[in-house]
Amino acid sequence: MSEYPSILLEQAVNQMASLPGVGRKTALRLVLHLLRQSDQDVQAFAGAFTRLKQEVVYCRECHNISDSELCPICSSSRRDHSTICVVENVQDVMSIENTGQYNGVYHVLGGIISPMDGIGPKEIEIDSLMERIAKGGVEEIILALPTTMEGDTTNFYIFRRLQNAGLAQSVKVSQLARGVAIGNELEYTDEITLGRSILNRTEFRGGEK
Amino acid sequence: MSEYPSILLEQAVNQMASLPGVGRKTALRLVLHLLRQSDQDVQAFAGAFTRLKQEVVYCRECHNISDSELCPICSSSRRDHSTICVVENVQDVMSIENTGQYNGVYHVLGGIISPMDGIGPKEIEIDSLMERIAKGGVEEIILALPTTMEGDTTNFYIFRRLQNAGLAQSVKVSQLARGVAIGNELEYTDEITLGRSILNRTEFRGGEK
Repeated sequence: MSEYPSILLEQAVNQMASLPGVGRKTALRLVLHLLRQSDQDVQAFAGAFTRLKQEVVYCRECHNISDSELCPICSSSRRDHSTICVVENVQDVMSIENTGQYNGVYHVLGGIISPMDGIGPKEIEIDSLMERIAKGGVEEIILALPTTMEGDTTNFYIFRRLQNAGLAQSVKVSQLARGVAIGNELEYTDEITLGRSILNRTEFRGGEK
Repeated sequence: MSEYPSILLEQAVNQMASLPGVGRKTALRLVLHLLRQSDQDVQAFAGAFTRLKQEVVYCRECHNISDSELCPICSSSRRDHSTICVVENVQDVMSIENTGQYNGVYHVLGGIISPMDGIGPKEIEIDSLMERIAKGGVEEIILALPTTMEGDTTNFYIFRRLQNAGLAQSVKVSQLARGVAIGNELEYTDEITLGRSILNRTEFRGGEK
């Protein structure tokens, strides 16, 4: 006999447990919580995911998730369209938007180069980035990818592509500042970050953070 | 502008975050994971919950979740139908089944008496438990409710109902043993449990656990 008293219950638990980081015990708890909700609430729960999957649109410029062909950021005349911030995914756009410090536009790669995971340059939105830049009007691209080996590889690949296309002179290429996180104690900062922060120290300009 | 680049995305995140213990950041991560799956997989995910909600059956004897009118435990001739273990919910049945130590049947109350949460005896399956016992053939009921004030209240209420029905003499009423958990150090056992374990000490019978 199965561990579960009902095949329907087991199938629902299997689906819930297929989500990353959700174990079978948690999945069972979540499914039994859903089962206590009204028919209408369970329909709304399930429907939200199928609707998203069926109706989602990706912005034709930046490839961010959108409700229309051109996302609100790309269609805004108040944003600086000469600066493109290159990010790995949708969450990164939201994180940078939440800082309130950036007024340019984005380019969502949808991943980073990772040979271990079988992700090469063709699997992510690099060609479309090059096309955007080649069209002209771009003054700076900011590489805001993870500070990992894969992120660095992707940064180098993009830079090389710009050089090969003869665009590395006309477009400024920058990356996010790396160093000790603001509010962090030095003793809790990892050695590599701390070491690089000493090598790449910046001029102290009296109180500016 | 909303924090989310898409209303569909926001609605899906809202639904995911309605699950207990799932915060908005986790919900976003889970929704974006779903979005990377195939149409078919997302359909299967959503469909499992609506199917469960629409087609779930509760056993007419023990009120456990079931695929048929009588659950596999209640319909098994190899189980001891004269012993009923009274539990709060479906998870508790699964936990006790997993021990492999119990061969009787169950009665799932679907909650415990909790005036704070507006749950009285009428909201849970106590009347149906009394009917089962009144039908005869029951020799023992094991109260396996949480060892909390609500659990104790429910235990007392059930016992009083048995007395009032004149069944407390013919049916043995027992409860789960309470004491120091096996494998636990005494220093990590809470004071109330440890205190009661001294008061309710049992005879040492040479090596038996």
